[in-house]
Amino acid sequence: MEIKIVRNVLAANAELAGTIRERTRAHDILLINLMSSPGSGKTTLLEKVIPLLKNKGVRTAVIEGDITTTMDAERLAPLDIPVAQINTEPFGGDCHLGAEVILPALGNFDLSRLDLVFIENVGNLVCPAEFDTGADLNLVVLSVTEGEDKPLKYPLMFRVCQLAVISKTDLLPYLGLDLNRLKSNLAHVNPQLPILELSAVKMVGLAELVDWIGRNLKK
Amino acid sequence: MEIKIVRNVLAANAELAGTIRERTRAHDILLINLMSSPGSGKTTLLEKVIPLLKNKGVRTAVIEGDITTTMDAERLAPLDIPVAQINTEPFGGDCHLGAEVILPALGNFDLSRLDLVFIENVGNLVCPAEFDTGADLNLVVLSVTEGEDKPLKYPLMFRVCQLAVISKTDLLPYLGLDLNRLKSNLAHVNPQLPILELSAVKMVGLAELVDWIGRNLKK
Repeated sequence: MEIKIVRNVLAANAELAGTIRERTRAHDILLINLMSSPGSGKTTLLEKVIPLLKNKGVRTAVIEGDITTTMDAERLAPLDIPVAQINTEPFGGDCHLGAEVILPALGNFDLSRLDLVFIENVGNLVCPAEFDTGADLNLVVLSVTEGEDKPLKYPLMFRVCQLAVISKTDLLPYLGLDLNRLKSNLAHVNPQLPILELSAVKMVGLAELVDWIGRNLKK
Repeated sequence: MEIKIVRNVLAANAELAGTIRERTRAHDILLINLMSSPGSGKTTLLEKVIPLLKNKGVRTAVIEGDITTTMDAERLAPLDIPVAQINTEPFGGDCHLGAEVILPALGNFDLSRLDLVFIENVGNLVCPAEFDTGADLNLVVLSVTEGEDKPLKYPLMFRVCQLAVISKTDLLPYLGLDLNRLKSNLAHVNPQLPILELSAVKMVGLAELVDWIGRNLKK
């Protein structure tokens, strides 16, 4: 009984995700869904990469997802781009963004004037991986402070993504982390997953990330 | 309809949590539920604090919760204490531990020979806060690498806890974190929440944590 209900929720979500894909395809917009644990650096990544994209003429908007607060949207305000804030609190403090909240959020934007929309999902390595947001690409950010074992312990997240960004690499000298073991754990759960090392503080890896996004743009 | 189902799930969970409390009370066992984001240092905290408790004659067991793998349970093997591993994967990759999995896990232990049981919950700042595990005390671990904003963005977690441990303080010199702002954000969402700063690497704050646990033991 309970399983049937969960299936219905996922089926309804998949249908709405299809509608989102039709809408973004009609405007040749690339939709990228950013996921990670709380505090892995999703907002910082957006703060750094969006100005670089702007320099290349890429018109970007962001859908910010949080249980509560507009703190991340406020951090993006200086970028002077369209930002839509979703708070899942009124829906019971949802631990993920479903297609049913992404579709109306897209309605806040003039899609004819955009090339790229980022979704910044709720900070959570579990639930967001289970729900199709309608994105073309899923990107997971994993901080070096989180340890080598996370890909093995949260495998679904790393299986649904097309790029893994290892963030905060500037902290490596101060940690006991075995970066090669982290990478081999990533390869173990998803051998096809490209890995990009990034330090927003040291501006390392950002050009490569801009290139990866550029290669996936639809226009 | 969906809301009603959620209420039923929470009501059933609350009933089982009551059964857990009766059982631990009958044996004067303190049950502590550890929660945090993935990679904040829950297992490391247990690795460091359990030997100190052992030195004081406190007989401890651990219930390890993960979606998949027994990696954390294996890390605790050298401590030579009873450990029960729960994997939520067979139940659909649950993002939290409910009372329905804690109750049978307790059955793995000889409760007459224990003073303290730790639950190490699934790494997630959202869902575990919503489900009563039957624990006497909830403890949240928040790493300094996660930023100052987490208490404001995940308020329920910090409201259901009786102690917040700020972990990895040895990394503070390498971060731009404003520790006072983090503390004032904690106080903002829960003015009654005691805060303990901890560095497992530098062995700072562990004695205070042992004291806090000792004051809460039932025998």
